Amino acid sequence: MDLSKFRAALGDIPIEDHPRIVQQKSRDHYWYSPILKAQLDQVTADIVVSPRTQDEVKTILAAAFKYEAPITPRGAGTGNYGQAMPLSGGAILNLMGLDRVIDIQPDRVRAEAGIILEKLDEQTIHAVGGEMRFHPSTYRMASLGGFIAGGSGGVGSIRWGGLRNFGNILGLKVITCEAEPRVLDLRGPDILKVAHAYGTNGIIVEAEVPLTAAYKWVDVMVGFDSIIEACAFAEQAARQDGLLLKEISPVAAPVAYDYFNRHRPYIKHRDQSVVLILAAPAAAEALADFVAYHRGEMLYRSDKATPEELAKLPPMYELAWNHTTLRALKVDPAITYLQTQYPDLDHVKKIIDFFGDEMPMHIEMTRFDGKIVFSGLPLVRYQSETRLEEIIRIHEENGCLVFNPHRYTLEEGGMKKTDRAQLAFKQEADPKGMLNPGKMIAWDDPEFDFDSGRVWLFAGLQTLGAA
Amino acid sequence: MDLSKFRAALGDIPIEDHPRIVQQKSRDHYWYSPILKAQLDQVTADIVVSPRTQDEVKTILAAAFKYEAPITPRGAGTGNYGQAMPLSGGAILNLMGLDRVIDIQPDRVRAEAGIILEKLDEQTIHAVGGEMRFHPSTYRMASLGGFIAGGSGGVGSIRWGGLRNFGNILGLKVITCEAEPRVLDLRGPDILKVAHAYGTNGIIVEAEVPLTAAYKWVDVMVGFDSIIEACAFAEQAARQDGLLLKEISPVAAPVAYDYFNRHRPYIKHRDQSVVLILAAPAAAEALADFVAYHRGEMLYRSDKATPEELAKLPPMYELAWNHTTLRALKVDPAITYLQTQYPDLDHVKKIIDFFGDEMPMHIEMTRFDGKIVFSGLPLVRYQSETRLEEIIRIHEENGCLVFNPHRYTLEEGGMKKTDRAQLAFKQEADPKGMLNPGKMIAWDDPEFDFDSGRVWLFAGLQTLGAA
Repeated sequence: MDLSKFRAALGDIPIEDHPRIVQQKSRDHYWYSPILKAQLDQVTADIVVSPRTQDEVKTILAAAFKYEAPITPRGAGTGNYGQAMPLSGGAILNLMGLDRVIDIQPDRVRAEAGIILEKLDEQTIHAVGGEMRFHPSTYRMASLGGFIAGGSGGVGSIRWGGLRNFGNILGLKVITCEAEPRVLDLRGPDILKVAHAYGTNGIIVEAEVPLTAAYKWVDVMVGFDSIIEACAFAEQAARQDGLLLKEISPVAAPVAYDYFNRHRPYIKHRDQSVVLILAAPAAAEALADFVAYHRGEMLYRSDKATPEELAKLPPMYELAWNHTTLRALKVDPAITYLQTQYPDLDHVKKIIDFFGDEMPMHIEMTRFDGKIVFSGLPLVRYQSETRLEEIIRIHEENGCLVFNPHRYTLEEGGMKKTDRAQLAFKQEADPKGMLNPGKMIAWDDPEFDFDSGRVWLFAGLQTLGAA
Repeated sequence: MDLSKFRAALGDIPIEDHPRIVQQKSRDHYWYSPILKAQLDQVTADIVVSPRTQDEVKTILAAAFKYEAPITPRGAGTGNYGQAMPLSGGAILNLMGLDRVIDIQPDRVRAEAGIILEKLDEQTIHAVGGEMRFHPSTYRMASLGGFIAGGSGGVGSIRWGGLRNFGNILGLKVITCEAEPRVLDLRGPDILKVAHAYGTNGIIVEAEVPLTAAYKWVDVMVGFDSIIEACAFAEQAARQDGLLLKEISPVAAPVAYDYFNRHRPYIKHRDQSVVLILAAPAAAEALADFVAYHRGEMLYRSDKATPEELAKLPPMYELAWNHTTLRALKVDPAITYLQTQYPDLDHVKKIIDFFGDEMPMHIEMTRFDGKIVFSGLPLVRYQSETRLEEIIRIHEENGCLVFNPHRYTLEEGGMKKTDRAQLAFKQEADPKGMLNPGKMIAWDDPEFDFDSGRVWLFAGLQTLGAA
């Protein structure tokens, strides 16, 4: 890397090199994992480059190729696995300046990668009454490109599955890292080459995604005497095809009482498990009947709340997904989490019985290939790396999947399968391996086993016939 | 029944008594069934009464109570089980004059029972860009009230399940048949007392239903070499959570070639089985990729058709649901059909292997309590009632459900379970039994077994805790 020549080649593109600021922009939320925290704490880039246009991105990538400067793209840095952390130094490519909306249609939107998801929805709701199908719990911070490059699903996944699913991303514009960077318009199966690839094989500068009807979602919290009852209710609610719910998340006691500070007044006692729900306005009344039938306790409904209450409370989705972990961590720094999947309620129950309060259960109901499954984000009261590995092993021995969030490579995290088509695409889009180096094992290890037989959240391209 | 006094009590409410017209309005599409055709051919009312307002409905029902005139409510008469046929004569209550839209909100609409579904959607699309979640294939004729009183689901049921599902009907306004008819506003679990009850326990005059985002749905027809391949593809397409499809229907050869006259030019040969699909515009491209991956042959896409082609072709949904049967019947009057449900592809295959061309398979992919299932509307080359009963028995012996469409009572059809709560509601809303007499066995037979253990499409009220 010739950093000074690289900098010189960037002309008037804004560069930041103050070490404190560069360090801050070199980090994401990797510290949810004590293991990643220890491994990545020293990681920092040399500079942060903040392009204002797609042409400036091309200039940067040409210079990176020429002077061999590692480039790690970054949106808002809300990832949890070091997705945007520069293992080899070089430059952080801050894409938040690329935030234009390109085109809004009644059923889709195309925008630049750096737009914040909430801001994007504001524009599409205003223009056509539509919103994105799903978003992470970091909706108010995260960028469109960051979500696609580093995320997998979130609020809305109970209806629409995840980003992995065919049809949930309609198009991506990607810039390659070559002597003369090319602009590629990816559509169809090609999209999965760069979705959830952490920017290792091309820089996403634009994305086109479908819109669905926007609603003023009603936040609901329901109480149950046990987490099993909460999970059983959550599954039944998810099976109600006529109830339009965007989020269903059972959370075991004492998580809600101990960690959901501002919602605590609504929770009756520390042993109460809860289910967090987002309901369409037309579904709120039917949901209330359904809750009563299942003997749940209606603890909170935003459509019945006073303006004073609403002003005090965060949106319900900021209690869910990895915000559950975040809220727990803020109170108890010894907490971490896992990413799991349970095929049915029996498996959930078995694991809960096994670990009890060492692993307070947190489930996100999602659709996975047409089936309703229990996606787990259980909290873990962390003891040691050895014990964490043991918890993972016990899951796997009992037929439960684990997508390990304590790994920073694509393959080890278990979410994204790297296959030959993907590797071939990186050879084409990033021949010198300048893009987010160190994150794709298959690139660095010629002996990599593509066919290890594991289950992957992003199963690679063969499912779509592109491999 | 004192018909002349009943007539006199109606004042200037329009009455029709020309025998030919009365007979025509006394019929629905019962003739799809050779059994019902034989049983119901002689059924006719004495008069047809056509109220213009809800107050006139009250006047009619008060007079019916006083002079003991049987009342059989009717929308467009597109039912297939004699739902709107007056077994005891008396008056047909033609509700098509009650067609006002009461209120349109972004996520719901309330309208009078007689509005035609397509007309209702036109108004909601214009006002808020929303449409009903599902509709029968008789969309351009059927009324809102008729659909709710006599239907179960249709195009859209692959996303939203059926009318039976909690949240798919938000409210019903019902008028009772008493000395002083009451107007009841039913909400929540009470709705299921009168949904799919053929008007036996109250006259539906208004309904409130949720809206979903309206799209210019793309009609798609895909060809396969065998019906099993078509069904396998249909199931995979249904499982794609990111593909927004409103209709997925595999139809066995030679049905498409022999009976879909205007689409025949698109079908390659008589042995080609097809899958009929309605796709959201944003899903059309991804669907085409998906079809190619599954080695399907893209036979027709309305978004690629010329204006001349579009002008010649009926909408794709008019090949599906019971329009498949209708089109077959028009060509071959010896054809009838069944209503079945297959839990998985293996069961579909087993039944297809069993019956071959005696029962050309026609499947509608639907959601049923959160699961994707194969709802069957197979054509049957009718031989005799004995053989039809045998076909039903073979289904049941092989673990496949049959909702017998050759029965005119609620209970024998097997779609609607009559339970005590429902019977009690009829005692309250129709104490003299004037409403659509002869359709509810539990009313006429005090020995009726409520707990026969059968599986019902409308499972009664206990599932919602209202029994």
